[in-house]
Amino acid sequence: MIILGIDPGLNTTGYGLIDYKPHHTQFMATGVIKNSRTMNFSDKLHHLYRELGDVIRHYKPELVIIEETYSNRNPRTSLLLGHARGVLMVAARNLDIPVVEYASRYIKRALTGNGGASKEQVRYMVMKLLKLTNLPPEMDTSDALAIALTHCHHMKYESLMNPDKTQRKTR
Amino acid sequence: MIILGIDPGLNTTGYGLIDYKPHHTQFMATGVIKNSRTMNFSDKLHHLYRELGDVIRHYKPELVIIEETYSNRNPRTSLLLGHARGVLMVAARNLDIPVVEYASRYIKRALTGNGGASKEQVRYMVMKLLKLTNLPPEMDTSDALAIALTHCHHMKYESLMNPDKTQRKTR
Repeated sequence: MIILGIDPGLNTTGYGLIDYKPHHTQFMATGVIKNSRTMNFSDKLHHLYRELGDVIRHYKPELVIIEETYSNRNPRTSLLLGHARGVLMVAARNLDIPVVEYASRYIKRALTGNGGASKEQVRYMVMKLLKLTNLPPEMDTSDALAIALTHCHHMKYESLMNPDKTQRKTR
Repeated sequence: MIILGIDPGLNTTGYGLIDYKPHHTQFMATGVIKNSRTMNFSDKLHHLYRELGDVIRHYKPELVIIEETYSNRNPRTSLLLGHARGVLMVAARNLDIPVVEYASRYIKRALTGNGGASKEQVRYMVMKLLKLTNLPPEMDTSDALAIALTHCHHMKYESLMNPDKTQRKTR
């Protein structure tokens, strides 16, 4: 099962693809979609939409996992991030890919055991779990892979707790 | 020139279409795109995207005008509204329609002369300017028409100030 994890952002969106199998999950690809800060606002949204569409058409994931965003940051950041996140979610839905959300603390806890882990700790665990020797420098790439890996963790946990059915929270 | 005004919202988005001519602007249509509160989040975004696409394909506006959103409200409201607004903007851009934004105070001032006007005052002026005897009960419809009318006001002002060129702020 190919899973695409997304770490959303208006200027930099990280994405990471893994091929999930119960006993052998493999790294497929990772990268960032970047918007120049000088682009106008609707161009940035349009670019995010098109680029994510290209990633989905190329790698054909069955599922998109996106980080849930807390609203307890400043309202302007929330507003801008909301635009980017909405556009990324609709880009997946328009290609008939279900979208699942996990909270940031849940992702960090799934990967490192600590909901308050640093980005460096998350990156270390992503590289260890996927047996990678390097990753692009942007932390958004390891964050995006961590988001995808969280879903594997979630499915394993669910199948342990409910062996007859694997539940997921699809939004 | 057919102009589509949008009053964005996650649960209710108003839209209003006018046919702008320098001396005879006509009402074309207005309505709301509603999401049931029980729908899941990505379904709401997907529904907004598809419905706005249908409105655009049907009425073929040359320009979409959307209300600019202030971020000085609560962060959660900003975040949710940001998702809806991003999706509506990208729905227009994906159909090659430029998107222009005006601030709420500018819209109210353009219509009523008062940046702090009530929704009822805005509705009164929309009906007067477009010679309407009735409108759907939702204030989102008069707000959306007000947003479209603001662009006519803006173009008239610009052509008065710069007779050789009409400028617009396209985002």
